[in-house]
Order: sequence, then structure tokens, then C-alpha cells
Amino acid sequence: MTDKPFPTEAQIAAALAAAKARPALTEIYFVACGGSYALMLPNQYAVDRHAKTIAGHALNAAEFMARNPARLGPTSAVILCSHSGTTPETVDAARFARAKGALTIALTNLPGSPLDEAVEFPVYYTHAPKTFAPDHSAAVMARLTFGILAAREGNPLAQKLDTALTALPALIDSAIAAHADRIATFAEAMKREPVIYTMGAGANYATAYSYAICIFQEMQWIHSAGIHAGEYFHGPFEITDFDVPFIVLRGLGASRKMDDRGLDFVTKYSQRVTTLCAEELGLGVIDPEVVEHVEHMAFGTLLRVYCDKLADSRGHPLTVRRYMWKMDY
Amino acid sequence: MTDKPFPTEAQIAAALAAAKARPALTEIYFVACGGSYALMLPNQYAVDRHAKTIAGHALNAAEFMARNPARLGPTSAVILCSHSGTTPETVDAARFARAKGALTIALTNLPGSPLDEAVEFPVYYTHAPKTFAPDHSAAVMARLTFGILAAREGNPLAQKLDTALTALPALIDSAIAAHADRIATFAEAMKREPVIYTMGAGANYATAYSYAICIFQEMQWIHSAGIHAGEYFHGPFEITDFDVPFIVLRGLGASRKMDDRGLDFVTKYSQRVTTLCAEELGLGVIDPEVVEHVEHMAFGTLLRVYCDKLADSRGHPLTVRRYMWKMDY
Repeated sequence: MTDKPFPTEAQIAAALAAAKARPALTEIYFVACGGSYALMLPNQYAVDRHAKTIAGHALNAAEFMARNPARLGPTSAVILCSHSGTTPETVDAARFARAKGALTIALTNLPGSPLDEAVEFPVYYTHAPKTFAPDHSAAVMARLTFGILAAREGNPLAQKLDTALTALPALIDSAIAAHADRIATFAEAMKREPVIYTMGAGANYATAYSYAICIFQEMQWIHSAGIHAGEYFHGPFEITDFDVPFIVLRGLGASRKMDDRGLDFVTKYSQRVTTLCAEELGLGVIDPEVVEHVEHMAFGTLLRVYCDKLADSRGHPLTVRRYMWKMDY
Repeated sequence: MTDKPFPTEAQIAAALAAAKARPALTEIYFVACGGSYALMLPNQYAVDRHAKTIAGHALNAAEFMARNPARLGPTSAVILCSHSGTTPETVDAARFARAKGALTIALTNLPGSPLDEAVEFPVYYTHAPKTFAPDHSAAVMARLTFGILAAREGNPLAQKLDTALTALPALIDSAIAAHADRIATFAEAMKREPVIYTMGAGANYATAYSYAICIFQEMQWIHSAGIHAGEYFHGPFEITDFDVPFIVLRGLGASRKMDDRGLDFVTKYSQRVTTLCAEELGLGVIDPEVVEHVEHMAFGTLLRVYCDKLADSRGHPLTVRRYMWKMDY
């Protein structure tokens, strides 16, 4: 973060005005890598669910360039994200998309970074993983997506989303406080655990994926996979046993039926299930039309506190890496 | 399989004629669960890569219904697959899509099954996982997808695809014979292994995902995850160590750069990498414009032989389950 506030609000407004001004807009590509790619998945979800004239595609940045979609061009918006603004594939993808005539928008925490400079419309976000605010990355992404749907199609959910994002910080703070004992128990129980699975559906699958690859595999060297709750019964559930740990995200939106089916089964056959339930976190006060688009932000923030405590119990700080930042790759 | 040959060719022709006859077709939803969902991913890849007026979306069947895409309707084609034709979510998704006015096409191995009866255009495929033929499921899926692109947009690749599918069986048989020693070595080395990762990119990610969830997790109770080669460097690569086994798929198509980058790194830090290389399998004789759309079929068939031998060495036949088919869930 810089010393002065980021111009985030003005940047969002500029990006949305550009999206509105395009003669046509037929698809949004959501392009990033790793944790930033995971941020994109709930936005493809939102486009799939709500957009009448726009298709959404979330793609890893290298995959996006290799795939070189036939539809990518002047009627496309490409929204990218890299925290440091230096991820080479994401910077290359921004240049690639811009050269094709697409509207390019990028989120980054680092003004002046290569990604900031590669796109027409940069948007800076603030970053504090153990708290939440409407100018954090996941919130800014959702505001851009719903803002484009409002600008292009008159979708009415953007205002409800903003109201939800304003209510979330206090709800998340309360949830973190209320979970203190559970967090300590989890950290102690998992301190020598070699495998932890994460499960979710709908927009929450993004959080399951993100924690599997960025927290467990990357930051804790724990074997993991993000399991989609709808896919669980078509293969992964056979790995369930009394001693296999799962984190399950139970939402309040359209995917709740999948969540509950997965949860009913996994809690019957594993004794080591950690459940984060949106209803129990108090998210029932959020407008039912948008709660499914923000609950992953609450799950992600709360899980980060779980994982900080886990890192303590393992004696392995979240900052320690074997390879990342230490060598060329 | 029935006693008489399936009417597969006539069924494909009928489905394609219906796709051509639709007044408009703006998207194809590829909808299934588990291994059949994995079959859909290369088809979304093909649509993303080649279609100029059609968007592609691969979705788990329960997720598809919960997501209830705003664009689903008379201008949509929905292609579903269930081997037994009885997967409840897939059958429900077929009825759901048909009620919305979408063109519904379904692949199944079981004539008369609920899925067969739920859709307008059923297509039967034959099944023999240790061999390959152009009327196997992955091939039939690709023929439908490229056939729709030909019918709607005049895409010229369908003929090249058919030529490639005709050449594949002999190439795969040779590859299986040539790999006999490697298959035996793999099976012996992995016989007490608790974790095996699979990695691929582009259309081959589908095979990595399928083998992770259907073979390792489901049929062998081995912890696993399908890792996208482009995502590997953004989290998962930190789990790499000298004793962590990976299967890596190295293609000949657009994603080869990602494959090679992943392979270079993983072979440096793990001593237990099994590589399947499309070039070394002889797939270099296939037309470069379509090889990336069929190599996953070669990888999948060859890997099945690896896994059969692995099942022998573990004393755990691929047919043995803890939960599947044994209880309600």
C-alpha cells in the first residue's frame, strides 16, 4: 500500500464507463494465475448466472494465451489480476488481449507495476488478508463484474451487492471472534496432517480451490485438492475415511443443495470435518439475491485466520517457500 | 453393449442436422458428472479455441442446474453424458434444459436408460477402456462438437478430426506395447503410494482431472489432484519434493509450452515423474491442426493400462468401491 489512499473508486468508475461505451460487448474473459485466478471464478459464476448477452470465461493466463480464443477481440472485455502486478503470464496476457482490441482492465496492489502499465484501465485494491473491506480484491472484482452487467444490460444487482459489501466487514469480524475456540482446535488437530481436502460449490468452489493450492499446497506443503461438491459423489468421495480431513463450505445460495448433500455424506464417514456455514456466520441478514456472490469473501477471510493459526502450530510461517521467489522457474 | 451394432452414426447425423436447423445457436453447454464431466472439458476447449459465434461452457450437472444460466434457452445446445444413462443429476439436467427449449443431445452406453429417454437426440457409444475406436465416448463427443462448428460456422476441422480418429487406434496399440516395461515399473514403484498427482494443460487437463478423481481417488483410494500445468507455478509446485509422484502429460498442441515448463521443473525436484509424451507416442503423424484435440484420447487409453497394472500390484481391482453403488448417497 502507498501512503495515500488508492484512487480505486475513480478507477472502477473509469473502467465501467469504458465498458458501457464499447459499441458491443459479447464476452468477459477473467484472466489470472493461482490465487488471483481463483478470485476470477466467482465472477464467471455471476456472468453465467445473470448475463443475458455476455458469456463469461475464467482462464489461467498462460492457458488463455495458448487457447487464443476465436471470439477474443474488440467485443471482449478482459479483466486480469496480479497482486504484485509482475506475474509474467498475466502481464503477457494483458498485452495479448489489448493487441487484439479487447477492453483491458487489471487489478493490482502495485501502482507502476508492469500489469498496471499494460492495460488501459488499472484498478488498485488494498490488501489485508485477515480483515475485509469493499476495496479488497475480491470485492473490487465483484463490483466490476456487476457494474458491467448493470452498464450493459441494466442488471439491478449492483446496488444490492454494494450494500452487502458494506455489511460484510462487521459480520466477518464477529465470525472470527466467535470461531476463536474452533480455530485453536483445528490448528492443533491438523498440526501434523499430511493431507487436507477442501470442498465447495457455486462461487464458493473458488475459495475451496484457492485454499487447496495457495494455503495448503503452497504455504504449508500439505497435500490437497479443491473438490467441487457436485463432483464429490462421482469419484472423490471414495477417498473419504474416518481420519481424512475436509473443510466444507456451506453456502446460502443456489448451491446449498449440493453443499448439504456433500456435508451429510462426509460428516458420516470422516470424523475430521471442519464446516464453515454461511448461515451460522450471520450472512442470513444479507439480501438473498446477492448473498451467494459475497459469502466466499467471508469464508476466505475467516479461513485465512484458521490457516494463520495452523501455520503457528506447524512451526511453518505462511511466508516460507521452497521454490517461489527463490529461483527462476 | 447390445448384440447388434449401435446406430451411432445415424444418431450423430440426426443430432448435427438438428443443430444445423436451429434458427440460432449462441452457446453449447457441456453437462455431466465425474469422468463424463471430464470428457466435456476438451470440447469446451475446442469451442473456446475455434468458435466465432458460439460460447462453450462445461459444467457439472448439479452445478448447471443450480447456476441456471441466464442464457440457457432456445438458442442453446446442451450435450450431456452418462455412461449408464442413470446418473440422477445428469438426467435431471437433461429434463431441465429441454424444458427451457434448448436442443438436447446425450451420450450414453445404455439404450433405454432414463438419459436416453430424456433428450431429443441420444447418441450411443461403445466402451472398451483399454482400446480406442472412433465410436468410443471421447471420440463421439469430439465429432459432435466439431460437427456443430462445421454445421453452424463452416469450420473445416471436422474432416481432419475424422482422419485423426481413424489413425489413432493403431498408434495407441503400438504405444501400449512399447510402454510395457514402463507400465510394469510404474505399477511396482507406486504399489504402496498414498499420493499421486497428475498434470496437464489445454485439452489434456481433462485427462489429468479424470485420472485424479476417477482412477486414483475413486478406484485406488490414492490421494490425488489434477493440476493444470499453467497453475502449477502459482501454488501447487511448492508440494513438489524428491519423493512426490507426478504423472505429466506432454502434448503437441498450443499448450506444449506450459507442459514443458511444468515438466522441466517437476523432473528437477521430483525423482518420481512419469511422463506421457504425445510426440514419443507417435502422434506427430497426426495433422497439427487437430492433434491437440485427440491426444487426450491416446493419453487416457494408455493411462488406463498403467492403472490396470497398478491395481494388480496394489491388490485392489479397479472395480472395488467403499461407497459407490453400495449405498444411498
